Amino acid sequence: MKQSINVGIVGYGNLGKGVEKAIRQNPDMTLEAIFTRREPQGVQASVPVLHISEAEKFVGKIDVMILCGGSATDLPEQVPYFAKMFNTVDSFDTHAKIPEFFAQVDAVASEAGHVSVISTGWDPGLFSLNRMLAEAILPEGKEYTFWGRGVSQGHSDAIRRVEGVKNGVQYTIPVEDAVAKVRSGENPQLSTRDKHLRECFVVAEEGADQAKIEQEIKNMPNYFSDYDTTVNFISEEELKANHSTMPHGGTVLRSGRTGENSTQIIEFGLKLDSNPEFTASVLVAYSRAAAKLADQGAKGAKTVFDIPFGLLSPKSAEQLRKELL
Amino acid sequence: MKQSINVGIVGYGNLGKGVEKAIRQNPDMTLEAIFTRREPQGVQASVPVLHISEAEKFVGKIDVMILCGGSATDLPEQVPYFAKMFNTVDSFDTHAKIPEFFAQVDAVASEAGHVSVISTGWDPGLFSLNRMLAEAILPEGKEYTFWGRGVSQGHSDAIRRVEGVKNGVQYTIPVEDAVAKVRSGENPQLSTRDKHLRECFVVAEEGADQAKIEQEIKNMPNYFSDYDTTVNFISEEELKANHSTMPHGGTVLRSGRTGENSTQIIEFGLKLDSNPEFTASVLVAYSRAAAKLADQGAKGAKTVFDIPFGLLSPKSAEQLRKELL
Repeated sequence: MKQSINVGIVGYGNLGKGVEKAIRQNPDMTLEAIFTRREPQGVQASVPVLHISEAEKFVGKIDVMILCGGSATDLPEQVPYFAKMFNTVDSFDTHAKIPEFFAQVDAVASEAGHVSVISTGWDPGLFSLNRMLAEAILPEGKEYTFWGRGVSQGHSDAIRRVEGVKNGVQYTIPVEDAVAKVRSGENPQLSTRDKHLRECFVVAEEGADQAKIEQEIKNMPNYFSDYDTTVNFISEEELKANHSTMPHGGTVLRSGRTGENSTQIIEFGLKLDSNPEFTASVLVAYSRAAAKLADQGAKGAKTVFDIPFGLLSPKSAEQLRKELL
Repeated sequence: MKQSINVGIVGYGNLGKGVEKAIRQNPDMTLEAIFTRREPQGVQASVPVLHISEAEKFVGKIDVMILCGGSATDLPEQVPYFAKMFNTVDSFDTHAKIPEFFAQVDAVASEAGHVSVISTGWDPGLFSLNRMLAEAILPEGKEYTFWGRGVSQGHSDAIRRVEGVKNGVQYTIPVEDAVAKVRSGENPQLSTRDKHLRECFVVAEEGADQAKIEQEIKNMPNYFSDYDTTVNFISEEELKANHSTMPHGGTVLRSGRTGENSTQIIEFGLKLDSNPEFTASVLVAYSRAAAKLADQGAKGAKTVFDIPFGLLSPKSAEQLRKELL
């Protein structure tokens, strides 16, 4: 291993800014540069901000490029492009398209001799790991995932597309009673509505019909119609003051049986003040693993299932055994 | 991979019996034989029970030997012995001696060309994994482990050594208020006494001085004197009826900070009706990983930190990406 793992960031939104902060907490890593598709002039950051087209000049200087764009259009384009030049880490989270994305990235990274860790973060990522672990240990059982309380960007965007809505934030909230039932080992059958509530804070345009907005939100298919949804109209000032942070979290539970009839429950939970900062911290730990894997001669696309936890830590295997086993 | 992973059990106590049951839940694994140091005649099991000295006849027939003896004397002797002949998995849990045990097993297994997964189960094991993961993701933070509510064999044994005690069971109980403080992100300083209570159920010999027994238990150094301990005297019948199962569990929490001042909490918890059956289920999943690692040409001692989660599952990497990522 080299003295320091040199990292680049592609995309300087909330996630990219989170990565910049997370790297400061990891003395074995150095942030080299930030790359953006926008005009880089005037973007303030702790390191040089360059246009994405300049990244190729950093081949040999950057060990791992952390891709912080969105899953809809940025990552499917950017990850294969950067995997030709660098080891990469991303948080691609369109679950249904992961096999296709993996194949595409694997082909490029394998040929170029780089490691690309795809789809990490907390879901996909840590939650996937815990679903898998719990299923492997308790093959006879049932898995439950609850998300929240937290802001869902997709649902907030959906609110903001409703006519007459100026601004809005949506919280996904797990139903406490459902979580308690799972924890008790009851193995309940839970419908979509049983598991989560949706709470909306909406700023209406002046003169807009609030009753109509409320009905339109509550009846929106896929997003809200299968849930118990509450809609609260508030002022822009109140939205800014009370709903501008991005908390999130959730719980993955598996309730299984062993032997004659022993109930065994495995639970993993997150309670996050800042979703993007936490996701960024996961990406940074996996970028350390990507650098170590590449040093060991690995190549191709990898997921959280392929990576031993020990590689996430700056500590040696010996230290880990002594201090943490 | 072969059609089936063939497994042997060494030691047929609670843990060995748990492994026997767990293998029945895993169709890709077959239990070949059970080995015991005792006289095997008359031991009833679902497969042949043989004396430990006959194990060498199973070289080439058993892929992984799961060692279910105790950490004090059995495992330090048996793991190196069996690692010469087989891949092995064990639950060696004397934390302070792990580095020494690792070195000893690693030397034997490396030379013999076998894989030996040491110190797995839930603590060490799943709890270690979660401590390590959380520390790697949130380097600025504080870790808390709470055990229980569950039966501690070591503390129950200590009670039973007190003069005038016929039988006894001890429960380790986390202090709810301390757990709640950690979950709230307060990062409290917690003494030994703040974190756990100890509850004892004791059957006294006829005519024994109960007040003296109670004082002797409560003042026992290392085991009880640093805790708030309650002692309840009950009848042998009541002990058998209400305190003969072995529940356990616990929680590993890390409360960290990212960015300016965002509190991020990672929690992993277990609630187990049967501690030995759950530990057995973990050993069985890691024996699958040991077989796969050996098939890949790996050798030497491994810990939970060295093993990618994907190897614990009977599913292919492709299936895991599709179904669980």
